[in-house]
Amino acid sequence: MKRYPPAIRAFPHMIHGADYNPEQWLKWKDEIWQEDIRLAKQAGMNSLSVGIFAWSMLEPEEGEFHFEWLDEVMDLLAENGMKAVLATPTAARPNWLAEKYPEVLRMNDQRVRNLFGGRHNHCMSSPAYREKARIINTKLAERYKDHPALGMWHVSNEVSGDCHCPLCQQNFRLWLKEKYGSLDAINEKWWTTFWSHRYTKWEQIESPTRNWMGERDVHGLRLDWLRFTTDQHISFYRAETAPLKEITPDVPCTANLMADCEELDYYAYAKELDIVSWDNYPCWRGDEKGDVPIAIHAAFCHDLMYGLKRKPWFLMESSPSCTNWQPVAKLHRPGNLLRQSMQAVAHGSDSVQYFQFRKSRGSSEKFHGAVVSHEGTEKTRVYKDVCSVGETLKTLDDVVGTVKDGKAALIFDYHNNWALQDMRGALQERTAYRTEIEKHYAVLWKKHVPVEIIDQTCDLSTYKVVFAPMSYMLRGDFAKRVEAYVEQGGTFVTTYLTGYVDDTDLCFRHGFPGPLRKTLGIWAEELDSLYPEDENSIEWNGQSYRAHSLCELVHPETAKMLGQYGSDFYAGMAALTENVLGKGKAYYIAARTDEDFLSDFYQTVLDESGVSGVLKDQPFNGVSAQRRTDGEREYVFLMNFADTEKQITVDGESITLSPREVKLHTR
Amino acid sequence: MKRYPPAIRAFPHMIHGADYNPEQWLKWKDEIWQEDIRLAKQAGMNSLSVGIFAWSMLEPEEGEFHFEWLDEVMDLLAENGMKAVLATPTAARPNWLAEKYPEVLRMNDQRVRNLFGGRHNHCMSSPAYREKARIINTKLAERYKDHPALGMWHVSNEVSGDCHCPLCQQNFRLWLKEKYGSLDAINEKWWTTFWSHRYTKWEQIESPTRNWMGERDVHGLRLDWLRFTTDQHISFYRAETAPLKEITPDVPCTANLMADCEELDYYAYAKELDIVSWDNYPCWRGDEKGDVPIAIHAAFCHDLMYGLKRKPWFLMESSPSCTNWQPVAKLHRPGNLLRQSMQAVAHGSDSVQYFQFRKSRGSSEKFHGAVVSHEGTEKTRVYKDVCSVGETLKTLDDVVGTVKDGKAALIFDYHNNWALQDMRGALQERTAYRTEIEKHYAVLWKKHVPVEIIDQTCDLSTYKVVFAPMSYMLRGDFAKRVEAYVEQGGTFVTTYLTGYVDDTDLCFRHGFPGPLRKTLGIWAEELDSLYPEDENSIEWNGQSYRAHSLCELVHPETAKMLGQYGSDFYAGMAALTENVLGKGKAYYIAARTDEDFLSDFYQTVLDESGVSGVLKDQPFNGVSAQRRTDGEREYVFLMNFADTEKQITVDGESITLSPREVKLHTR
Amino acid sequence: MKRYPPAIRAFPHMIHGADYNPEQWLKWKDEIWQEDIRLAKQAGMNSLSVGIFAWSMLEPEEGEFHFEWLDEVMDLLAENGMKAVLATPTAARPNWLAEKYPEVLRMNDQRVRNLFGGRHNHCMSSPAYREKARIINTKLAERYKDHPALGMWHVSNEVSGDCHCPLCQQNFRLWLKEKYGSLDAINEKWWTTFWSHRYTKWEQIESPTRNWMGERDVHGLRLDWLRFTTDQHISFYRAETAPLKEITPDVPCTANLMADCEELDYYAYAKELDIVSWDNYPCWRGDEKGDVPIAIHAAFCHDLMYGLKRKPWFLMESSPSCTNWQPVAKLHRPGNLLRQSMQAVAHGSDSVQYFQFRKSRGSSEKFHGAVVSHEGTEKTRVYKDVCSVGETLKTLDDVVGTVKDGKAALIFDYHNNWALQDMRGALQERTAYRTEIEKHYAVLWKKHVPVEIIDQTCDLSTYKVVFAPMSYMLRGDFAKRVEAYVEQGGTFVTTYLTGYVDDTDLCFRHGFPGPLRKTLGIWAEELDSLYPEDENSIEWNGQSYRAHSLCELVHPETAKMLGQYGSDFYAGMAALTENVLGKGKAYYIAARTDEDFLSDFYQTVLDESGVSGVLKDQPFNGVSAQRRTDGEREYVFLMNFADTEKQITVDGESITLSPREVKLHTR
Repeated sequence: MKRYPPAIRAFPHMIHGADYNPEQWLKWKDEIWQEDIRLAKQAGMNSLSVGIFAWSMLEPEEGEFHFEWLDEVMDLLAENGMKAVLATPTAARPNWLAEKYPEVLRMNDQRVRNLFGGRHNHCMSSPAYREKARIINTKLAERYKDHPALGMWHVSNEVSGDCHCPLCQQNFRLWLKEKYGSLDAINEKWWTTFWSHRYTKWEQIESPTRNWMGERDVHGLRLDWLRFTTDQHISFYRAETAPLKEITPDVPCTANLMADCEELDYYAYAKELDIVSWDNYPCWRGDEKGDVPIAIHAAFCHDLMYGLKRKPWFLMESSPSCTNWQPVAKLHRPGNLLRQSMQAVAHGSDSVQYFQFRKSRGSSEKFHGAVVSHEGTEKTRVYKDVCSVGETLKTLDDVVGTVKDGKAALIFDYHNNWALQDMRGALQERTAYRTEIEKHYAVLWKKHVPVEIIDQTCDLSTYKVVFAPMSYMLRGDFAKRVEAYVEQGGTFVTTYLTGYVDDTDLCFRHGFPGPLRKTLGIWAEELDSLYPEDENSIEWNGQSYRAHSLCELVHPETAKMLGQYGSDFYAGMAALTENVLGKGKAYYIAARTDEDFLSDFYQTVLDESGVSGVLKDQPFNGVSAQRRTDGEREYVFLMNFADTEKQITVDGESITLSPREVKLHTR
Repeated sequence: MKRYPPAIRAFPHMIHGADYNPEQWLKWKDEIWQEDIRLAKQAGMNSLSVGIFAWSMLEPEEGEFHFEWLDEVMDLLAENGMKAVLATPTAARPNWLAEKYPEVLRMNDQRVRNLFGGRHNHCMSSPAYREKARIINTKLAERYKDHPALGMWHVSNEVSGDCHCPLCQQNFRLWLKEKYGSLDAINEKWWTTFWSHRYTKWEQIESPTRNWMGERDVHGLRLDWLRFTTDQHISFYRAETAPLKEITPDVPCTANLMADCEELDYYAYAKELDIVSWDNYPCWRGDEKGDVPIAIHAAFCHDLMYGLKRKPWFLMESSPSCTNWQPVAKLHRPGNLLRQSMQAVAHGSDSVQYFQFRKSRGSSEKFHGAVVSHEGTEKTRVYKDVCSVGETLKTLDDVVGTVKDGKAALIFDYHNNWALQDMRGALQERTAYRTEIEKHYAVLWKKHVPVEIIDQTCDLSTYKVVFAPMSYMLRGDFAKRVEAYVEQGGTFVTTYLTGYVDDTDLCFRHGFPGPLRKTLGIWAEELDSLYPEDENSIEWNGQSYRAHSLCELVHPETAKMLGQYGSDFYAGMAALTENVLGKGKAYYIAARTDEDFLSDFYQTVLDESGVSGVLKDQPFNGVSAQRRTDGEREYVFLMNFADTEKQITVDGESITLSPREVKLHTR
Repeated sequence: MKRYPPAIRAFPHMIHGADYNPEQWLKWKDEIWQEDIRLAKQAGMNSLSVGIFAWSMLEPEEGEFHFEWLDEVMDLLAENGMKAVLATPTAARPNWLAEKYPEVLRMNDQRVRNLFGGRHNHCMSSPAYREKARIINTKLAERYKDHPALGMWHVSNEVSGDCHCPLCQQNFRLWLKEKYGSLDAINEKWWTTFWSHRYTKWEQIESPTRNWMGERDVHGLRLDWLRFTTDQHISFYRAETAPLKEITPDVPCTANLMADCEELDYYAYAKELDIVSWDNYPCWRGDEKGDVPIAIHAAFCHDLMYGLKRKPWFLMESSPSCTNWQPVAKLHRPGNLLRQSMQAVAHGSDSVQYFQFRKSRGSSEKFHGAVVSHEGTEKTRVYKDVCSVGETLKTLDDVVGTVKDGKAALIFDYHNNWALQDMRGALQERTAYRTEIEKHYAVLWKKHVPVEIIDQTCDLSTYKVVFAPMSYMLRGDFAKRVEAYVEQGGTFVTTYLTGYVDDTDLCFRHGFPGPLRKTLGIWAEELDSLYPEDENSIEWNGQSYRAHSLCELVHPETAKMLGQYGSDFYAGMAALTENVLGKGKAYYIAARTDEDFLSDFYQTVLDESGVSGVLKDQPFNGVSAQRRTDGEREYVFLMNFADTEKQITVDGESITLSPREVKLHTR
């Protein structure tokens, strides 16, 4: 049985909950709190996230603690059989903390320190902030360690960003000393002889800047700064979870991620978490044309979250209505909230949670959608939508803990992304690694193929086929592991812009794709960049497919040419190659193409590798099928992303889905 | 007789004048000054504004005063029967002042102090600046108090902007203490428990910043900062007019406003002024299609200036030719300057004044249009245009002091505007309150309805109908006064996004439109935001009108549904309602529409309320009719905003206007 | 014989070379250096630029020098009969220098000092930087003064930018004192009475800022700041070449310019150089439509570089493949590199040099095109392209030192450009002086007319016709010299926006075009600016040509009206005039037009003036003809900028050029 235990201890149900800030209503608590719990229960909610951003109410002055209100809330939850996802309050600090210890405020890359304000912007190095966080977290853990409502720890909130203060500079230098040992090593790896940027003292090393004010030409520096920043967040996470782990060792910890955030290496960060959770805010448009791309992006994000630990995860936030920050705050159309919620479950979530339970009356998020609006009753359309999610979740206990078990993997690597963002040449920002990865993902999604999103450090051995487009940076022993994987029978597919640089962004010598040259059996001599109005073609299998943006000029060595360029001075040169190595094969797509080519070519690759979709012979018609399994039973979620009725054939049975409908098919 | 006394004492004529900087030509004064006065008189000018930006010539070193040159200019004016609109020189400071007292320079919201430069950028808190201003203003008043040329005080110039220096922070805290009494009150009203932004010491309060550097999420803070900034300008105005009021109590004071400036509450500021004046720079395009929208915007601005005090005002600046700062410096087409000038008079101005009399030779405004160009003679086309304005103004002595006497009011409220600018949600910046208000204005303007622009604090009792679109923030007792107004027989019209927040930007609980729920007889449950390419419709009176951008989902309670949505999941729900309350009616338009709907619907509202236009049964054809009256006679200005000949019927008489022509019809 | 001696002493060949950074490969030198020299020689290269950005390897710690590696490189070059273009390393500094002497880092206009990073950003005032530069340059000169490889000095690299530090402020004030003598003079010339910006102490003068933070309204200040900045660069150039000139008096010095850089007065700067050189990076598109405009811009830049000294120059950098910084890094199509290289020679270059010889492995320029790629061998297409350039250059010894000898001049004046960039009014940034100058150039280029690009300070006497469009600022005695030039028989052509301001940006009084009013015989009364969608026409010679953007309203005085406006209120007014003065003529084009009018009108002007093109009766068909001459023989370069075959008739002979082909025709 492939099934993980439920994330919240002794609670084998799908979690249905929301962020809840009762401290904003302390003055009106008699009127509001009981009513909130009544409304939550009535909507089938079994959990609320509390304490997020509550520091100033828990410790209004330094060393003066007020847990009474939180006691009352925790008791209310327990009395009603609900769980608390209890937050550490570190995502925003009280005014007094910043006033007394200005070091807790970040400095930006221009070396200007923030004023008090906003959130998610503490210095991760600050000893004062760590100490204050340790104290409040210890107190929380001690006070609630035996409270029946305590289900899970919610550590900080949506961590991100970096700090360029002197303390962080110092830590960065220590980190580098640890990593490289000597300045000589750094000078070589970062290629600092270029423009005379060699370091002769550790103190000369400064974090990179985004503009011309400081260093932004040494790419190795920026890469290591981003790695250091991930490690800073990890270090802070460890520091603030230390008391939790000690005092409440069996209460799991999560930290809510943002799948669109590209500045942290989530694969590294997720290793620290007991369970991954994330905040999903798709901009649904209401019709098939608008919603299918949104659904694909959400699916990619969900699968990325799954891939971080290759385990079920938690949907920590989503909006029951519109958001306050998107350019157009469109309401959920009928059925949309349920479909949005079920899509998360289909892709591995064991929860549906909302931001927020009750709308705040003031400040910047007061118009963010919530279960309960300013009006305050159960009369609203939104509240009824939430109830229908609650009812559905109650039927899904069996699905809790089940897995994805994909046989195809798609590599999305944060370090490679950073390197490509920094790459000067080609199309500059239009190199667009993430966009391209999602294009490849879309092709597989439309084929209903369960795909796992992994990075270059992950084990490849359980997959039949690995897609790794634009593997510009080859980290560590990845190339070697790919070679072994192919030799042992795996299928590996990659594209142009692969095998250019190593871990520290140094170009491979003696010909691209560097250490993958043998596996791929080609030499990539030049990269042609095309203007948006220009195009070429790949001629393959009797058809001509548009190629554009980036066309590499490659020479097959041991590889066989499958397809060729159709025009320009490199017409007839290889545009698609296949290399047999040991028991496996490695394919190379030399140019950027549209989905049509990828769809046709990937079908042959999938067929050859023996990877099939959740549905057989079912071309995409607006309905997506996703599967979870415990190794025996399969839970197939059918989701209609169209606003019209659709038919779909599953295991020989024809199933009708009304507009936006979701159906669960078990087999 | 409804007629105000002339603004300039003992001078019962329309003022025709210009900003004049003779100090720039001191070295060439024998050649230039006499000639300037000759040219001015010959063009029918009876006034010149002098002393603006002259501080460095009046007090070239600290405590060293040179009034001789100004004496000479004042004498020249008096000798030629002309008046001086004499300026206090505080809109820009001498270099020595900033060098010796750096505190007079503003700090921006990033807490960086300006270098010397520009204008309109002194710190309003600076004791040094107030003291230096007091001294120079006292000297000016004492020197010229009995001078026959002194007609009026022109206080500073186009004041605007804010300052974030420590002195201003301190004053802001005092202002808050005065307003709220306690931090507890502030924490509640600003809802600072959100994100733990609670204040526990007054010193923690800092002005908001525009970027992530500091506080920008607490909307109550920003609102109060804007209110404080208006009060800072008022305080500075009072300080610098104190000596003027004491020494020359019967000389009126004005300060020239900018109708497009939205950062100060001009209704509050105008209370301080003896007469409102403003600077009008429309970008005329030369043909009907281009000029009608420009004319509407100018008309709106003129009516806004009228509404500030509900009194005649002064056109203080306008360009006799092009400007130096607009993207395209298009010349006035023949007739355009006269039409532009008469439009101001038609909307309540008792003056036509220009920036500038003579073009400066250097620095950034040297190509701004002027009565006299660098060429220096009376030979130019522009000079002749100015002469024709002069001739026309001479015939309008009777119009001086007459009023608008509108029976329809349109509410444009600065505080509501600020709140909507800050609102996160809906369409973000496309919420566009000002743009929408001007759209509603355009509909009334095209019907030739005299409309007064007021804010929520103004008395409603003299109007038959009050239009108040998007009254998102309901300030003070406004909702109560609206209710009384309707009960007593008034007609009130408002739209979607009304009644969401109170004075401090806290959302109303228990259902929008909050305290107007009874008056309007509806509950607004949700607000749907539409993408630019999407639309819905309002079905009313057998017709279908496009609705777009914002569609509110409202439930009539005591109201009657007049119109309904045509499509989407809320098809059939109320889109237009009418509520009878006492002797009056309140209408609600739930969605954003185009002018076509507003034109048709407002016609029925106007007809019902008994409000008629200046012209009867005269659909808009490019000619605008505006009226001034002394309660007995009516002065109807007919203005052809087309570049072709137009016919119009007035009181049964058919009148022909040649391209761009203006005619005055008295009845 | 009009022929200059070769720029590199005792080396009468076309130079074929590249920037070379062997210090980046010191660790691998045995493997790399010999191979590099072998590859260079084999490609026909006879020169390499070394030492650029090598400071940190020459002086890794203060006072600790390491020339051994450079000795070895110089010896290698000499052994292989190659020359070194030896660089001073000042374009980037070692980390230790910035750490120890922070004053060497620039301050930006916001008065924020840079961190270490980037390049081309040292303070030109810093005594520490000058001293360190003097020491390293002296050591270089002493060490290599007798080295047979030393061919030329390459001083710094692509100098540009300004510094706003206190030392520079101080130098600026001294420079102003020197220029103006007194603050009174400055106050008058900068017209500072405007907005009370008068200076009463030298210390009050601060450099201008780009935003509202400081002074940006006093145009005379910004103009003088730009002039001062040019002089700062000259001063620094003189300081760092002083030891070179003393120790190696017969080794010529150059500094590589950037023809698109508009912030320095290159005419002034070039006076310091022994030979002009520049870095040419056109974005070729591959087809006729795309490449002709690129070719024209490159030709203009080449001719500008020629015009700086009216002497042959050096192509110092160009890419053998794509660049790393352009938005789209398109590869050279076959034949393109040779054509690009020959175009430089055709326009006066005595060299073809590349950036770079070998691609660096890391940092931001690692993907900039190079002779040798990361792959490292001679197998690449790019390497073969370089070889073909080498072969061609070997056949062109005779061309070395030959001149352009144009009879037509086109004025492009940096000071006028600065003044127009600052001009507030008209179309703001769309005034676009440089763009317009290049449009006029294009018309002459398509007629194959050899044109020299000069500024207002240059001698006019050798030209038959001088084109000076948009001579808004008339500097020094330029107007007087134009008058004399025309009187003596010259033809002068100018346009709208001429003769508005003097050297210090003060407007001419008594009518534009100021001191050219007599020469042109007109008075320009007003300037009408048109919106992009509007247009007028010039009616001339029985045809109607589109006029747009800027239309001046001029009155002929002694001039004759040749053409008139076709519409709007100034229809029938003069749009094209001719004034006879002495033996010459002066033409005035009052409006902005398209190329069609300029082509037709300029043809009559050229015919009248007796200026003919390189080819007779050969309308432009994609092939450009450029000529160099020694006064006896003419070297006509025919360059096909199309990707199709073209025919062209030269001296009666029909010549066929294949796509992108270049042919040399000698006569």
